[in-house]
Amino acid sequence: MAKELKELTKRSDNYSQWFNDLVVKAELAEQSAVRGCMVIKPYGYAIWEKMQQQLDKMFKETGAQNAYFPLLIPKSFLSREAEHVKGFAKECAVVTHYRLKASEDGNSVEVDPAARLEEELIIRPTSETIIWNTYKNWIHSWRDLPLMCNQWCNVMRWEMRTRPFLRTSEFLWQEGHTAHATREEAEEEAKKMLHVYADFAEQWMAVPVVRGVKSETERFAGALDTYTIEAMMQDGKALQSGTSHFLGQNFAKSFDVTYLNKENKPEYVWATSWGVSTRLIGALIMTHSDDNGLVLPPRLAPIQVVIIPITKGADQLQAITEKVIPIINELRALGISVKYDDADNKRPGFKFADYELKGVPVRLVIGGRDIENGTVEIMRRDTLEKETKPIDGIVEFVKKLLDEMQQNIFQKALKFRDEHIYACDNYDEFKERIKDGGFFLCHWDGTEETEAKIKEDTQATIRCVPFNAEQTPGVDMVSGKPAKYRVIIARSY
Amino acid sequence: MAKELKELTKRSDNYSQWFNDLVVKAELAEQSAVRGCMVIKPYGYAIWEKMQQQLDKMFKETGAQNAYFPLLIPKSFLSREAEHVKGFAKECAVVTHYRLKASEDGNSVEVDPAARLEEELIIRPTSETIIWNTYKNWIHSWRDLPLMCNQWCNVMRWEMRTRPFLRTSEFLWQEGHTAHATREEAEEEAKKMLHVYADFAEQWMAVPVVRGVKSETERFAGALDTYTIEAMMQDGKALQSGTSHFLGQNFAKSFDVTYLNKENKPEYVWATSWGVSTRLIGALIMTHSDDNGLVLPPRLAPIQVVIIPITKGADQLQAITEKVIPIINELRALGISVKYDDADNKRPGFKFADYELKGVPVRLVIGGRDIENGTVEIMRRDTLEKETKPIDGIVEFVKKLLDEMQQNIFQKALKFRDEHIYACDNYDEFKERIKDGGFFLCHWDGTEETEAKIKEDTQATIRCVPFNAEQTPGVDMVSGKPAKYRVIIARSY
Repeated sequence: MAKELKELTKRSDNYSQWFNDLVVKAELAEQSAVRGCMVIKPYGYAIWEKMQQQLDKMFKETGAQNAYFPLLIPKSFLSREAEHVKGFAKECAVVTHYRLKASEDGNSVEVDPAARLEEELIIRPTSETIIWNTYKNWIHSWRDLPLMCNQWCNVMRWEMRTRPFLRTSEFLWQEGHTAHATREEAEEEAKKMLHVYADFAEQWMAVPVVRGVKSETERFAGALDTYTIEAMMQDGKALQSGTSHFLGQNFAKSFDVTYLNKENKPEYVWATSWGVSTRLIGALIMTHSDDNGLVLPPRLAPIQVVIIPITKGADQLQAITEKVIPIINELRALGISVKYDDADNKRPGFKFADYELKGVPVRLVIGGRDIENGTVEIMRRDTLEKETKPIDGIVEFVKKLLDEMQQNIFQKALKFRDEHIYACDNYDEFKERIKDGGFFLCHWDGTEETEAKIKEDTQATIRCVPFNAEQTPGVDMVSGKPAKYRVIIARSY
Repeated sequence: MAKELKELTKRSDNYSQWFNDLVVKAELAEQSAVRGCMVIKPYGYAIWEKMQQQLDKMFKETGAQNAYFPLLIPKSFLSREAEHVKGFAKECAVVTHYRLKASEDGNSVEVDPAARLEEELIIRPTSETIIWNTYKNWIHSWRDLPLMCNQWCNVMRWEMRTRPFLRTSEFLWQEGHTAHATREEAEEEAKKMLHVYADFAEQWMAVPVVRGVKSETERFAGALDTYTIEAMMQDGKALQSGTSHFLGQNFAKSFDVTYLNKENKPEYVWATSWGVSTRLIGALIMTHSDDNGLVLPPRLAPIQVVIIPITKGADQLQAITEKVIPIINELRALGISVKYDDADNKRPGFKFADYELKGVPVRLVIGGRDIENGTVEIMRRDTLEKETKPIDGIVEFVKKLLDEMQQNIFQKALKFRDEHIYACDNYDEFKERIKDGGFFLCHWDGTEETEAKIKEDTQATIRCVPFNAEQTPGVDMVSGKPAKYRVIIARSY
């Protein structure tokens, strides 16, 4: 077993350390020289590209178009929407100067004090303000609506405690911003995009999610409603994986965006915004991976199949390669990404461990005896099961196996998730059991006081009011007051 | 003719104003609330996406992988490479603080003076420094080389005079950064990527380019050689459209990046970097477009075919739509993007002018009589020629026409370019003729003095020493000194 792999912390020893180790050892990302900012390495970025490609397609199918808005936002814009400023005018990177000058000895550079900006600029923590300031000029009549733009970009929130993919000062994301003529249309759009995120999470990431609406306390700053998808990690904690906001007319009023309706009367526009980020990679890692390394769902794996020859000498390698080339070509013709690793400077055992660490879904191994027998050894990463199969028909077998693995990885995560959702009506019991993680379905009286007490006592928060749960009235386990419905409470990332 | 179109300035009246008008009227981009930063609107961004898609494919075919490095660079990094600091530690956006706080009345936000960074951070003007600081940890042995990463991102250079796409404070680009074991390999990589850019410009953008090497004065700050592609705009000015740099060991030495060679001895790594930006959209517009609006080469047009029905009443529209749907489906099956514009709130004449303005390559118009006759009117945007064709076989006709237009647009630009390249041996003649634009092939003695004098007298600069020109020695037209070769001199954007 390879040295690197041996050093991977076990999940049962320290789940948090296991995650940090895995991110580095699987070459997904690493800390940079800039506090709280990570470098996304090629293998990690390849996963992000696969995510982007599919999400972008899904967004465009809803009618959204991509655009690009400025990185920097005038400071005053942040305070235009009263709630928004409370949420985002905090830990921001502030640009105050626009010029450097060389020091007198020429060996270093200094900020030029003469080049101070009249108004400071903020690196976007999110782009509602600059976008609504732009939409003002794009929207005049009901014929200009709906307006649906998305941008793929970097954003910055100066985080004090950071973790790769889960919480970094700079991160990559997409943010959709839509404008509608009616309240109903905007609410429908916000929900529709939440379901796009949920479908992507479940069908592509193989991550089951709970769809629901946030409590007022947990809403996006400036939203009337925030819809969320919540995934469960293997330690039972929740990871908010995507949010979609119904913004009402708040931003339209703050930036004076009106349209002339069919009766030629001016009305304020209704808005939504929605986003997912490189955090999804964190969700992907923590949901499926194991003590051997990453487990990637085939649909998002940068390399889906690796083929490793086991040879004695160059002649045998040539015989194997000749046998392998048509397999590679047929797999690629089916749109399956294949790597043939015939490098002679690493032992097969090292390669096996390395591709397990990197979560490559299917491994094919061919040695001299396989050539004689017309066979190939196949291993699937999700269960680590190996079997020997005839080379004839292996392409079709691999194709079916990848589909089966995608399903299996999802079902495994779903089973785990569902086994860790508990209805709970007793606060003492809750306080004890929450320590082991899980989602708790509890009646809530709807007050901030109860919410705050739970958080103070247990660090757990209301993740959402789930959409699809059968709701019956009951009694709040904390206050004893009547409660209309159950919410999901969990500790979270 | 639509009102918007009438207001488009004519090229012959004011070429510069024509460009600015066209960018806005064709809905490509507009100024934002932040000085020098533009909003790229959906139609403009769709062109950029098409460019990205093809370039990304071409980069990956050379073995480059995508990754992502931080937006912010510690100020001290900029001064690590002596030449680099002179070129880039100038007009930069400087982050000095990381927190805002609400004012006492809660109506505005202020920079929190307590949250001053120990070391200021610079928004990347280019990423050599942060990337080489990272490569230090990725490169140990000759087996780690070559290392070839590319990133698609935003960069910022605080420009005093800005123009959409051509020169903006923030712009989008890609930057490739490669590390090699030998000087030869790095030089070869830098040239290879220049040819990738040139092939993309000519085959996709239909923009002919001169490939060459920059004079020392015009080199990238920190490079030993800068290769460039230079395109000619319709006013005869040059537009530098892409550059590739051979960086020698400068960054490896500044950031202490060594590898162990096959003899196990440490050596400094050899480097290249290469980039193209949203400036390419400026080149695209200015090379092909005319007084009616954009002319887009079919391979980069977001909409390749627009179909417009001309109807009297809903019944006729239905009959036309039924006839059109199979055409749309067949075109799309061939990978051709089609828009069917049956909106009833705009007159056909308005639509015609609008799609001409937006440069949609092919327009099909179908009216009631066409249905009776089994015909369709087809117009090609490059020549504005119209003809009536049978509906049968129209799909195959359009497909061939798009290919033909791609060639025609390139040939037209090539003819214009070649007619405006002049050999010139007399400085007085040069000073007179340069006023009308064009590329001048002139002998150069290789001195900075001559270069500076030409620039001072005429604002023209040495664009490059062209790769493929037949070179004969001669006499420098300015200094009268012997000159080994001719260079291209032009005014430029």
